[in-house]
Amino acid sequence: MIIVMHGRANPAHIDAVVAKIRAAGLAEHLSRGTERTIIGAVGDERVLSADMFETMPGVERAIRVLKDYRIVSREVKPDNSVVSVRGVQLGGSAIQLIAGPSAIESAGQMQALATRLRHSGVGLLRGGAYKPRTSPYAFQGVGEAGLGYLQQAARSQAMPMVSELLDVRQLDTFLEYDVDVIQIGPRNMQNAELLKEVGRINKPVLLHRGVASTLSEWLMAAEYIAVGGNHNIVFCERGIRSFDTASRHALDISAIPLLKRETHLPVLVDPSHAGGRASLVAPLACAAIAAGADGLLLEVHDDPQQAWCDAEQAITPAALDELLATLRPLAAVVGRTL
Amino acid sequence: MIIVMHGRANPAHIDAVVAKIRAAGLAEHLSRGTERTIIGAVGDERVLSADMFETMPGVERAIRVLKDYRIVSREVKPDNSVVSVRGVQLGGSAIQLIAGPSAIESAGQMQALATRLRHSGVGLLRGGAYKPRTSPYAFQGVGEAGLGYLQQAARSQAMPMVSELLDVRQLDTFLEYDVDVIQIGPRNMQNAELLKEVGRINKPVLLHRGVASTLSEWLMAAEYIAVGGNHNIVFCERGIRSFDTASRHALDISAIPLLKRETHLPVLVDPSHAGGRASLVAPLACAAIAAGADGLLLEVHDDPQQAWCDAEQAITPAALDELLATLRPLAAVVGRTL
Amino acid sequence: MIIVMHGRANPAHIDAVVAKIRAAGLAEHLSRGTERTIIGAVGDERVLSADMFETMPGVERAIRVLKDYRIVSREVKPDNSVVSVRGVQLGGSAIQLIAGPSAIESAGQMQALATRLRHSGVGLLRGGAYKPRTSPYAFQGVGEAGLGYLQQAARSQAMPMVSELLDVRQLDTFLEYDVDVIQIGPRNMQNAELLKEVGRINKPVLLHRGVASTLSEWLMAAEYIAVGGNHNIVFCERGIRSFDTASRHALDISAIPLLKRETHLPVLVDPSHAGGRASLVAPLACAAIAAGADGLLLEVHDDPQQAWCDAEQAITPAALDELLATLRPLAAVVGRTL
Amino acid sequence: MIIVMHGRANPAHIDAVVAKIRAAGLAEHLSRGTERTIIGAVGDERVLSADMFETMPGVERAIRVLKDYRIVSREVKPDNSVVSVRGVQLGGSAIQLIAGPSAIESAGQMQALATRLRHSGVGLLRGGAYKPRTSPYAFQGVGEAGLGYLQQAARSQAMPMVSELLDVRQLDTFLEYDVDVIQIGPRNMQNAELLKEVGRINKPVLLHRGVASTLSEWLMAAEYIAVGGNHNIVFCERGIRSFDTASRHALDISAIPLLKRETHLPVLVDPSHAGGRASLVAPLACAAIAAGADGLLLEVHDDPQQAWCDAEQAITPAALDELLATLRPLAAVVGRTL
Repeated sequence: MIIVMHGRANPAHIDAVVAKIRAAGLAEHLSRGTERTIIGAVGDERVLSADMFETMPGVERAIRVLKDYRIVSREVKPDNSVVSVRGVQLGGSAIQLIAGPSAIESAGQMQALATRLRHSGVGLLRGGAYKPRTSPYAFQGVGEAGLGYLQQAARSQAMPMVSELLDVRQLDTFLEYDVDVIQIGPRNMQNAELLKEVGRINKPVLLHRGVASTLSEWLMAAEYIAVGGNHNIVFCERGIRSFDTASRHALDISAIPLLKRETHLPVLVDPSHAGGRASLVAPLACAAIAAGADGLLLEVHDDPQQAWCDAEQAITPAALDELLATLRPLAAVVGRTL
Repeated sequence: MIIVMHGRANPAHIDAVVAKIRAAGLAEHLSRGTERTIIGAVGDERVLSADMFETMPGVERAIRVLKDYRIVSREVKPDNSVVSVRGVQLGGSAIQLIAGPSAIESAGQMQALATRLRHSGVGLLRGGAYKPRTSPYAFQGVGEAGLGYLQQAARSQAMPMVSELLDVRQLDTFLEYDVDVIQIGPRNMQNAELLKEVGRINKPVLLHRGVASTLSEWLMAAEYIAVGGNHNIVFCERGIRSFDTASRHALDISAIPLLKRETHLPVLVDPSHAGGRASLVAPLACAAIAAGADGLLLEVHDDPQQAWCDAEQAITPAALDELLATLRPLAAVVGRTL
Repeated sequence: MIIVMHGRANPAHIDAVVAKIRAAGLAEHLSRGTERTIIGAVGDERVLSADMFETMPGVERAIRVLKDYRIVSREVKPDNSVVSVRGVQLGGSAIQLIAGPSAIESAGQMQALATRLRHSGVGLLRGGAYKPRTSPYAFQGVGEAGLGYLQQAARSQAMPMVSELLDVRQLDTFLEYDVDVIQIGPRNMQNAELLKEVGRINKPVLLHRGVASTLSEWLMAAEYIAVGGNHNIVFCERGIRSFDTASRHALDISAIPLLKRETHLPVLVDPSHAGGRASLVAPLACAAIAAGADGLLLEVHDDPQQAWCDAEQAITPAALDELLATLRPLAAVVGRTL
Repeated sequence: MIIVMHGRANPAHIDAVVAKIRAAGLAEHLSRGTERTIIGAVGDERVLSADMFETMPGVERAIRVLKDYRIVSREVKPDNSVVSVRGVQLGGSAIQLIAGPSAIESAGQMQALATRLRHSGVGLLRGGAYKPRTSPYAFQGVGEAGLGYLQQAARSQAMPMVSELLDVRQLDTFLEYDVDVIQIGPRNMQNAELLKEVGRINKPVLLHRGVASTLSEWLMAAEYIAVGGNHNIVFCERGIRSFDTASRHALDISAIPLLKRETHLPVLVDPSHAGGRASLVAPLACAAIAAGADGLLLEVHDDPQQAWCDAEQAITPAALDELLATLRPLAAVVGRTL
């Protein structure tokens, strides 16, 4: 912690700061500049908070030197982590695709789609059984039955299954249906109780970024999971809120390289939710891979116009195949396989 | 629903839109302009979604005419709603104050503070037993014991008690300790499962705005609660995320008049979290009352520098008294009592 | 400047930083912590930039200790500055009102409005002769003739006149018509060439905040004017861009106390442009005065529905009188006159 | 224009709206729904504004059907426009690179860099003679001499030259030095007077997006230029302001496909300013090309640590060559040449 004193701070102000640093078990280090005195707290600054000092008279600001996340930090583990799920590797040299409908509709739908997606080269099957919706009048998902349809379809194609968990009370059901990757959506990124629960199990967690979360808050959310013992965390960038409503959210493409510098964990991108419309999926997917993403999460529906949820952003299996025809050579250009 | 066709939409495109409107049980109304054909869907548009049309060829955009919220809407109930809690009226002519520490620390702290706040004229006592923190390493609250301290202090002063609920599994405990007003914090504003649960009980809910939630999303979150049967909802504006980090969040002062136009429910303001520092509490509190807020939520701590959480934004009881000396005549100016 | 080294920075990295500090004529001050070495640069850090260090190997980040603005800073001049214009004091104990139409339409309009506004107690008359519009097809103002109408009306009522300058080439015309306060609008807040020009004259400048400018950038824009010799600068907060389109801009109410802490110069608020609609003017105006603003800029039009520009946000003279009936006692509550 | 009436609008309200539509020379088209009456204005809605109706009693909102931009719109000209400058085609099948230092420093620097960049395959040479800086104390550029250095270097390599225009008064100098492409920076995107001036000349204009400008405002800025007669406009996305300060700005990658759908004009991307640091240039440049950009603007400096301006974001010529080794095959994957 670095404490910058006001230009007019007096010796008593400085002494009080020093006393507080010592009381916390750290040592001080004073630097008297021409216009400001700066005090460094030497030792484990994690027992300190900026608040402790910024409320003191004569203090201009207190700056943390260390980051709050540890386990997920690349500083602690410099090499990339690979998250394995039923033999599929997330974060390795192969780009991975997770695909499926926004909302699971029926057993038949999931079975047909799983077969089709498997054939296209999709690695993991995704579908929403419980849907987080802005309106209470909107379709809320088929519920538990959906997990059954998803499981059946996924197992028949030997694909790991991915679904979104909304509530701690659903966790047992998720474990019962053996959901392979548990998605935490943007609305729950800072739901600490849910994060703590998925931190106690040994399933990979796909952690979406909140629509207005900073990278630092996102890394801290991952740390909540990691601190419980579960280090199988995969980040998923899906767009941030901006002042422009021309696209639903603004895909934060810089988040990919920035996050990969800060953490050893895999980083995926969801171009479907970011853009919020089918025509944006291909350019955003290509951009994500070009920028270094480890994989994509794509909403695919056999007949998007008839989809029960998020119709506007789903692409057809045929459009997926077309996209893959570009993504495959593109992955090769950036040294990856697909 | 109004569907605007592209300049180059052909008759078949128009026919398909008309067919879809009819299939949903509504009637169409065509208006052929000089550059665009516009199709109105006449009937209950809530069975339609913009997605259903915007994915069709020849459609430029689809615009909803009606808002998605109903129960909380002033259109449905033009007069102000007053939410009563143990004889205290929120949304009436009296400005109400909810005050207390960010985090409950001990029985003694709460008792002393309750006595002090009651004496200052505070109507409701607030304290956090479970704390939602960005970092898993930060203090997470004293837990259930805290509800006991809060209850004891509140009952001794005949003040209704207010505390934040983070998890559906805590709800029974909250009911056991008879928490009078259940706070839903910004991180949980779109936690639909939690909203549904508090919609089933008959306790007033204090619904904070998410840091990047639009007014429309906030109203929809309230509708989630209302649709379950609980109409005792109080909004609390507490700042939105902006590009400027000079203050923690930007208090959205316009939200007060805008919200009061859209809904009949009370609207409070939390200047402590909005500004994130004690020196901003007074100006923001005055601004909120001047702009028409029905009350304030204030973080007060006997010794802010020693507070276990959010030290920087707490004010002392003495500072509260000083603030009240300005707020009281100010309330009178805008036709309210305090 | 404080330079924080990476955890794995080696002695050569540290030596290079030290060498660079010395080469710039400053002295270094090393503090070796448990996880990081921190290097302070002692001396006038304004010759340094963060870039100079953050591009060096082993450096994690460089933090400026001092702010870039000096002349406008309260650190340099702790007492409030009062800007006088034809005997009207901005920033003194009296709240000042600047009012008039968005666009000047005719001599008759301005004359009638000036008389009416003067009678209501408005101190300064404002009108736009040149209008900055988003669309090239929108009305661009009546031009130079408008300055004549404004001048005639203002002089007849002995009110100082205020008008917006869009282009350096208009400055001579503004001086010719003796415009008393030169407005720099949000689109030009970072138009450095324009700022330099108004820095060379001795007319007060009303500097609006850019819609997405930080307080720090705004203060720097003022510094551009001040460095030229013109210290008669008045800030005008008029709303920032947010993710919510419910109001045109979000009035940043916290900017008032934050700015007044950083600078000795007066701070006004423009509730008309911030909210973008007439119904928001009164609550935002009251909030601004309650939060400590030194005055208001209000768009007033005799018949808003017929206004040539920004019709939606103008209020009538009658509405202004009604607003003043609340603002006057409100000003008294916060210790001001109006 | 579509006017949506309030649920409780009465016949007189509707009649008034109809009368206003007719007065403007358009015809009305009424649609009475179950909860709302909707009135369409048939004819050229560009003579109407939403303000004209939203201030009328009984009106809920007025929605424009047509967009305000025309000349730059793809609706008017469906095929891509190619902007030619000294034989270099912007917007054709070849990806174009514009590169050079943020600030021109000396004749020698520009000559060496031009030779080096030409050799790497860069098509256009760029350098800033006048620098728009946030601080008046920061280096403001070498001025006119810089245009001479740039011209000499560019002509010697037969590269078109690109430089940023800050002020209408500099335009003659730019024409004198025959600057081939005139850059309008983000701070001036809504400087209408400057846009009008460059609209009167026949030089291509590189129009950067304002840091908080919507796509619609950006297109309108281009329309300001186009309406003057100059249709040689090239857009340059360079990052938007977000709530996260982890990168300087957030590159809005979706802007590329969205803009190309709305306009026939070329769209470039500036990854240097968007990310604000050298390590982000390569991933953002790759993403931009993958998403469909027509070219890149890159800051290159022989010795970034010694650069007089924006040192942190410049890459070396060697780093550029390395980037091109990826960009070339990537361009081929998306069907372009480089």
